[in-house]
Amino acid sequence: MAPFLSKRDLNFQLFEVLDTAALPQRPRFADHSRDVYEDILNLAYAVAERHFAPHAREADLNEPQVVEGRVRLVPGVAQAIAAFRDAGFFSAHHDEALGGLQLPWVVMQAVQAHFQAANVGTSGYAFLTIGNANLQRVFASPEQQQKYMMPLLEGRWLGTMALSEPHAGSGLADITTTATPRGDGTYSINGTKMWISGGEHELSENIVHLVLARIQGAPAGVKGISLFLVPRYRVQADGSVGENNHVVLAGLNHKMGYRGTTNTLLNFGEGGETIGELVGEPGRGLAQMFHMMNEARIGVGMGAVMLGYAGYLASLEYARDRLQGRAASQKDPSSAPVPIIRHADVRRLLLRQKAFVEGGLALGLYASSLVDDLETGPEEGREDTRLLLDLLTPIVKSWPSKYSQEALSDAIQVMGGAGYTRDFPVEMYYRDNRLNPIHEGTEGIQGNDLLGRKVTQAGGRGLQVLLSRIQADLDASAGLDGLEEIQAALKAAVTQCTQALQTLLAQAGQIGPDLYLANANSALEMLGHTVVGWMWLRQAAVAAQALPGARGDDADFYRGKRHAARFFATHELPRVRAHAELLASIDRTTTDMQEAWF
Amino acid sequence: MAPFLSKRDLNFQLFEVLDTAALPQRPRFADHSRDVYEDILNLAYAVAERHFAPHAREADLNEPQVVEGRVRLVPGVAQAIAAFRDAGFFSAHHDEALGGLQLPWVVMQAVQAHFQAANVGTSGYAFLTIGNANLQRVFASPEQQQKYMMPLLEGRWLGTMALSEPHAGSGLADITTTATPRGDGTYSINGTKMWISGGEHELSENIVHLVLARIQGAPAGVKGISLFLVPRYRVQADGSVGENNHVVLAGLNHKMGYRGTTNTLLNFGEGGETIGELVGEPGRGLAQMFHMMNEARIGVGMGAVMLGYAGYLASLEYARDRLQGRAASQKDPSSAPVPIIRHADVRRLLLRQKAFVEGGLALGLYASSLVDDLETGPEEGREDTRLLLDLLTPIVKSWPSKYSQEALSDAIQVMGGAGYTRDFPVEMYYRDNRLNPIHEGTEGIQGNDLLGRKVTQAGGRGLQVLLSRIQADLDASAGLDGLEEIQAALKAAVTQCTQALQTLLAQAGQIGPDLYLANANSALEMLGHTVVGWMWLRQAAVAAQALPGARGDDADFYRGKRHAARFFATHELPRVRAHAELLASIDRTTTDMQEAWF
Repeated sequence: MAPFLSKRDLNFQLFEVLDTAALPQRPRFADHSRDVYEDILNLAYAVAERHFAPHAREADLNEPQVVEGRVRLVPGVAQAIAAFRDAGFFSAHHDEALGGLQLPWVVMQAVQAHFQAANVGTSGYAFLTIGNANLQRVFASPEQQQKYMMPLLEGRWLGTMALSEPHAGSGLADITTTATPRGDGTYSINGTKMWISGGEHELSENIVHLVLARIQGAPAGVKGISLFLVPRYRVQADGSVGENNHVVLAGLNHKMGYRGTTNTLLNFGEGGETIGELVGEPGRGLAQMFHMMNEARIGVGMGAVMLGYAGYLASLEYARDRLQGRAASQKDPSSAPVPIIRHADVRRLLLRQKAFVEGGLALGLYASSLVDDLETGPEEGREDTRLLLDLLTPIVKSWPSKYSQEALSDAIQVMGGAGYTRDFPVEMYYRDNRLNPIHEGTEGIQGNDLLGRKVTQAGGRGLQVLLSRIQADLDASAGLDGLEEIQAALKAAVTQCTQALQTLLAQAGQIGPDLYLANANSALEMLGHTVVGWMWLRQAAVAAQALPGARGDDADFYRGKRHAARFFATHELPRVRAHAELLASIDRTTTDMQEAWF
Repeated sequence: MAPFLSKRDLNFQLFEVLDTAALPQRPRFADHSRDVYEDILNLAYAVAERHFAPHAREADLNEPQVVEGRVRLVPGVAQAIAAFRDAGFFSAHHDEALGGLQLPWVVMQAVQAHFQAANVGTSGYAFLTIGNANLQRVFASPEQQQKYMMPLLEGRWLGTMALSEPHAGSGLADITTTATPRGDGTYSINGTKMWISGGEHELSENIVHLVLARIQGAPAGVKGISLFLVPRYRVQADGSVGENNHVVLAGLNHKMGYRGTTNTLLNFGEGGETIGELVGEPGRGLAQMFHMMNEARIGVGMGAVMLGYAGYLASLEYARDRLQGRAASQKDPSSAPVPIIRHADVRRLLLRQKAFVEGGLALGLYASSLVDDLETGPEEGREDTRLLLDLLTPIVKSWPSKYSQEALSDAIQVMGGAGYTRDFPVEMYYRDNRLNPIHEGTEGIQGNDLLGRKVTQAGGRGLQVLLSRIQADLDASAGLDGLEEIQAALKAAVTQCTQALQTLLAQAGQIGPDLYLANANSALEMLGHTVVGWMWLRQAAVAAQALPGARGDDADFYRGKRHAARFFATHELPRVRAHAELLASIDRTTTDMQEAWF
């Protein structure tokens, strides 16, 4: 069995490309050191390997089932969640006063990466709980935090996000679940929620739902939506679990992948009253959710990266071992077949995977480091950091979701028929990852967010910050050995992006919002590839500087980094031009298309 | 439930773009007419709808199982095969003297398309049998045909192709199954075959395997491989089924998709002797197989097209019905949500699917029409037809395999979470179609075939024929209304392809075969998109000519064709340039990569 994660690369990204080892200089992390971080990452690897990886396929093959109104999962899930809890990961990035380790976000993401790679389905229960608690930490009252957040940090209860409804998935403005004041400050919740991951199970004695609903008389649209804490079982004054709160499982969704994470249809207020507590002010529900959206979307992107990465490692191991065929120049049929990694097209498929997943990992961790900079970095520059993070978030979410899927298709292709069977994990990763371009905002929504909001936000300041950081890295890498291709291709891509956006923005007022956004997907593609090209420049520059002093495996590792950058430059970055030209042409093909013509 | 196939488009392709109605002018088809063809296509639709479509999901959910050494399938499969047989489709393209209808190949492919779209898993049993019989028709002796082919044409027995072995999938030169002369003209077959679709089941009283094996003392490599007819049960003198021939099921492969077609590991000569008959001359096995390869590969491409097409139709129906969101310019949150087909990015995803699947269908049927021209067309020009068909075959096989997968991903994306569930068929099509870039020669093999063999075959004559046919269609379409984008983009793509190949070929001798083939995938991509661009020009030209006289639905249909051509021109053909430039640069990135650097 191939490893599910490359420790060497994770260390490279955290400690050579990013300066994670310098974080302990910040007051919040004063008790930390690189050794502490490495110990925690080693613990994550051990827990993931021992408790998460072994039942990944079993959970895929044995979908969650409804038994007497509850959801039954394979036994490994509960054991894994217990191990995750015992290792302290539920609260690891929280304050020491809350029992946490005050881990930086980038290290927390690296921890989570292990579980996403080892078993994305089971890790879902943990990460939904962490996301729920993070939101409570910012917006819930101290009493609510004591009642609903602390059990999550302790891993005693688990949490969900209950946003979508059967008629309103991407269109949250139209949700109809109602919240009726009960006169005592609490609300009676009624409605149906769809696509709720972890919405019902027997893993914990209670489940805390964060629910979007409308208070009676609230205005239409997003301004009428409020956020509520709704427990599966009511919580008694002493914090113990009380009577049924009538959140009823109405059905399970049967998915192509991600099968370990049960996905539910829930009725609130069926067969009795469902009582919820308002979080913060009325009408702020969507804004509160979106406050956490950067982190949630980075999490989706990182999950996609790790599935792609695990697939890459599996197909790499196979390609080294599998003997088949000969070089085109080898005409002697009695010569021995060679490992398929020697064939140029197999190497292309492996290099492409390497370029996508290591580029995606660099991007996900870079964005995570921006979250740290925003929270604990120098005051000066935080606004720029926030705008850059806002700009990058739709890319961090969508680029790995799409290109890990390409990588996983390549992993299957390397392995041929074997990759298409359950004898190897890549077909499962391929099914699992196909969810990532859909949830937490579809690719279409990310494109609109990027071009419609982030590119123009604060007068385009986020884009300026991005371009100046890319330029600074280009300047700093000038003269380094073996970087010619990535430097030239990145410069060309930056020029193409800049010109396309200038052309489009100059006409934005005239063409109106619908046509302005018609080719938002090309903006996402064009900027996505350019940003990942930048990530490859950064990695290649570190490698080029380290190479003269490196020996053996280390030297090979750095040469591989530099070569993957070259691959991204020669095989991938040239795709930017077609997207830039389409965007600049203000192409009307999609808007001109009539429904009757399909 | 959405239709699985567009009758309107199939008629357009056969009778408006291609001149299928003129085929009855050829002597072999003298008893036919357009009405006859349409009746047969209607029969195919009815049989597919009634007997194939209903159990497609059931067969996907209930994988074949081994019960007492036999493979048990869901009951619908046997009923469907019986209906297929009763309709006469097993022998439909064979001579009337053999009980056939002498259907042209292009009509036969259109017939088969219905079953591929309705239920690709069940149709596998039928098409493997048809392929087996086709090979026997060309190479088997009259006695063998009577004994082994006629029961296939009658649909009483089913057939397989047993080529691969556990250590030799793509590398057939290394197969080790042996054939030992028994002294009576027959051979004793020993060895293990892998990935044998339909290798064991209870659908028919016998199974006829076509097996590649080495006669003792044969030379190494492909020249030592011979082809054998090996029945599951021995055939008695009167043609009836006799005793066990000891072809033993050793295991089933568990696949991501295509689950209805059981896929087996078979041992020949286990627990007793397996007797086979040599087909034709010794040492000709691979050549015989490859003689049928054009048709087999067109069949795979058509299968891919039809899966993509069925997904397109399903997501289109969903997009018309599903209400969600509003236009970017609509700021009133109390306005009604719109059908998602109104959103530009959803239209992009639908147009992209339409461009891929209708372009693929045009290509598959065009190539099928070349098979007819080769067999029944005017003597003059047959060599050109053969070279063009040879050149197109790797594209016809691989382009739809890849781009139907993109289309199916888009179908899922249109439907969001719903598309990711088993409530709709698109996730199944997505899993099914992922096999197509693998079997009957992987994408890598197709690229090598195209660039290493077909482009240079007969002094590049095939490529010249292709370019002159494209130019003729460009000339013929000059001045037609609304074709400017596709004409300009296709001309540019042709120029880019031509220049890239000229540059590469000029250095071929100097750089050697390994580097020459290193970027064969870019040749496949570049020529693939260009050829499909040509297919779109042909469709758009027919539509533009028909539009002035068209009304209502017909006018909408033609406008849709012309608009999809514009989409392919503006959104897809610009991708050709990056591939052409990479190819012309004789890029060494994949060949320079060292194994230790991964």
